[in-house]
Amino acid sequence: MTRRSAVPPPVTAVLDASSRWLPVRLGEVETSLRELSSGHGEPLTEAATATLAAGGKRLRPMLVLLCAGGNGGGAAVRAATAIELVHMATLVHDDVLDDAPLRRGQPTVAATSGRPRAVAAGDLLFSRAFALLAEAGDARAVELLSEASVALAHGELAQRHDAFDTGISEQRYLERCRLKTAKLFECACLLGLVATHHPRTRERGRETSGDDERVLAGAEEMAEFGSGIGLAFQLLDDVLDVAGPPERTGKARGTDLLDGTVTLPLIAAAEADSGIRSVDLRSLDAKTAEALCDRIAATGALDEVRSRALEMVARAKEQLESPAFDPEQRQLLGLVADGVVQRYS
Amino acid sequence: MTRRSAVPPPVTAVLDASSRWLPVRLGEVETSLRELSSGHGEPLTEAATATLAAGGKRLRPMLVLLCAGGNGGGAAVRAATAIELVHMATLVHDDVLDDAPLRRGQPTVAATSGRPRAVAAGDLLFSRAFALLAEAGDARAVELLSEASVALAHGELAQRHDAFDTGISEQRYLERCRLKTAKLFECACLLGLVATHHPRTRERGRETSGDDERVLAGAEEMAEFGSGIGLAFQLLDDVLDVAGPPERTGKARGTDLLDGTVTLPLIAAAEADSGIRSVDLRSLDAKTAEALCDRIAATGALDEVRSRALEMVARAKEQLESPAFDPEQRQLLGLVADGVVQRYS
Repeated sequence: MTRRSAVPPPVTAVLDASSRWLPVRLGEVETSLRELSSGHGEPLTEAATATLAAGGKRLRPMLVLLCAGGNGGGAAVRAATAIELVHMATLVHDDVLDDAPLRRGQPTVAATSGRPRAVAAGDLLFSRAFALLAEAGDARAVELLSEASVALAHGELAQRHDAFDTGISEQRYLERCRLKTAKLFECACLLGLVATHHPRTRERGRETSGDDERVLAGAEEMAEFGSGIGLAFQLLDDVLDVAGPPERTGKARGTDLLDGTVTLPLIAAAEADSGIRSVDLRSLDAKTAEALCDRIAATGALDEVRSRALEMVARAKEQLESPAFDPEQRQLLGLVADGVVQRYS
Repeated sequence: MTRRSAVPPPVTAVLDASSRWLPVRLGEVETSLRELSSGHGEPLTEAATATLAAGGKRLRPMLVLLCAGGNGGGAAVRAATAIELVHMATLVHDDVLDDAPLRRGQPTVAATSGRPRAVAAGDLLFSRAFALLAEAGDARAVELLSEASVALAHGELAQRHDAFDTGISEQRYLERCRLKTAKLFECACLLGLVATHHPRTRERGRETSGDDERVLAGAEEMAEFGSGIGLAFQLLDDVLDVAGPPERTGKARGTDLLDGTVTLPLIAAAEADSGIRSVDLRSLDAKTAEALCDRIAATGALDEVRSRALEMVARAKEQLESPAFDPEQRQLLGLVADGVVQRYS
C-alpha cells in the first residue's frame, strides 16, 4: 500500500510556479485545520485529528486561495479552511455509510473509533466550518457553503436511492456528480471570489451596489471553471475505481460496484455490451467485481470516459481567458486543472 | 404504544394563554419545516418527511418565538425553523448511532431507510438550517446556531467517550448535559432576541453601537433562562429512562444503561448504594437493565434528581423578572418552564 507524500505532485507544480503568497496561505490553512482539531478536550481531538492526519490534496482550499488571488487575505484563508472542513466531514460520514476500512490507505475514523464517534466527528467538523465563517461575519461565504452542503447531502441521498440500479441514465449520473462533487468545487471558486470583497461592505449594499454587479460578472466564469474540473475529477475517480491499480488507489478495484454505485464507465460499457445491464450487483464479491471491471474495460469505456473528462477540463480552462482572472491566476488555475488530469494519466 | 397527539399538553397551555400571534407563527414554522422536506426529488423527501412526521413538542421553536415576542416577524420564524431542523438532524444522527428502532413511538429513519440514508438525511437537515438563515442574511443567527451545533457534537463525542464508565463524576455529567441539551435551549432564546433586531443594521455596528449593548444586556437573562430549563429537561429525561413507564416514554426502561450512558440517577444512587458503581453495564440485557433501574429507584435517587431539576426550573423562572421580558413573555415563558416539569410529573 503506497503512502502519499505530504505534498502530492500537482500541488507541488502549482506551488513551484506561484509567488510567495500561496504557500504562506496554504500553510495558514493547515495551521487553522490543526487548531480546529484540538483544544476541545480529549475525545474530540482524537477523532478529528485522525481525519486530518489522512491528509489529502487540499484541492478545494487551493481553488479558494487561487480564485481569491494575492489580495484574498484572512477571509480567503477562513473560507479555504471551512470548505476543507466540510469536505472532511463528508469523507468521515461517507466512511460511516460505507463501513470503509481504509481511506487514502489509512484506517478511517469509522474503523478506528467506531461509527458513533465518526458520525459525531463529522457533525463537529461540519459545525466548525460554519462557526468559523459566521464568527468572522463572512455572511455571503456562509450562504455559498450551506448551499453547497445542501447539494452534497442531496447528491448522497440520490446515490443511495439509485444503488444497485444498473439501468440509470448518463444524465442521472451526471446530475449526481454535479451535486456530490462539482458543486463544492464551484463553491470553492466562488468563496475565493467573495473573499476579495470585504463582507460587511458587501452585505450592506448587496442587492443594489455596483460592487456586487462586478462580483456577479466574475462569478459566472469562476463557477464554470470550478464546476468543470469538479465534474472531470469525479469522472476520472470513477474510472480509477474500475482501472485501479489498487496499490495506487489504496482500494480494491470495483469497490463502487460492490457498494452498488453505478458510474459512467459501467453506463458507457453497457452501450457496447448490453449484457452488463443485467449483472446483479448485489451478488458480486471481490473476485466477480474484478471480473466485471475487466469486462467494462474490454469495451473501451474507460478511454471514452477519460476523453470526456479531458474535454471537460479543456472547456473549464477556456473560462480562464476571462478578464475576471489575472495572469497569475490564469497560470496557476491552469496548473490545478492539469493536475486533476495528471493524477489519473 | 401510545401516540402523542399533534399538540402536546404543555404546548396547548401556552397557546391557550397567548394572543393570536403565537399560533400563527408556530403554524408558519410547521409550514416552513414541511416545505423544506419536499421539492428536492423523491429520495430526499421520503427521508426528511419521516423525521418531520415523528412530530415532537417544538419546544425550541416556541422558545425562539416567545423570546422574540410579538415583534419577531420573519426572522423569528426562520430562526425557529432552523433550530428545529438542527434538532431534528441530531435526532436522526442519534438514531443512526444507537441503531434505535423507535423514536417517539414511531420507526426511526435509520430503521426504515437504512443507516446511509439517515446519515445523509441528517446532513441535509443540518445544511438546510444554515442555508435558510444565510440566504436571508441572518448573520448573527448563523453564528449562534453554529456555536450551539459545535457544542452539540462535542457533547455527543464526550458521551461516547464516557460510555460504560460508571465512575464519571456529577460535574462531568452536568457538563455533558450543558453541551448536548442546554446549549441549544440557550441558543433558542438568544435567536429569539436577535431576531427582533434587524440583522444588517446590527451587523454593521456590531462592536460599537448602543443597540448592541442592549442586546447583550437582555441576552444574559434569556441565556440563563434557556440554559436552566434545558438542563432540567435533560435531567428529567434521564429520570424517565429509569422510571418509565415504557407505554408513556415509548422505549424500554434502562435504554440509556444498555447504551452505556451513565446519567445522574445512577451517579446519585451510587452515593447510597456504592455497589452500583461496580455493575458492568456491558453485560446488561433488557431484564437486568430493568433490575438495575429498580435498584437505582430504591435509593431514592430519582426523587433527588427530580428535585434538582425543579430547583433549576425555579431559578430559570427567576430570570423572567428581568425588564428584558415584557409581561406576556413572562407569563408564556413561565408556562413553557412549567410544561417541562409537568411532562414528567
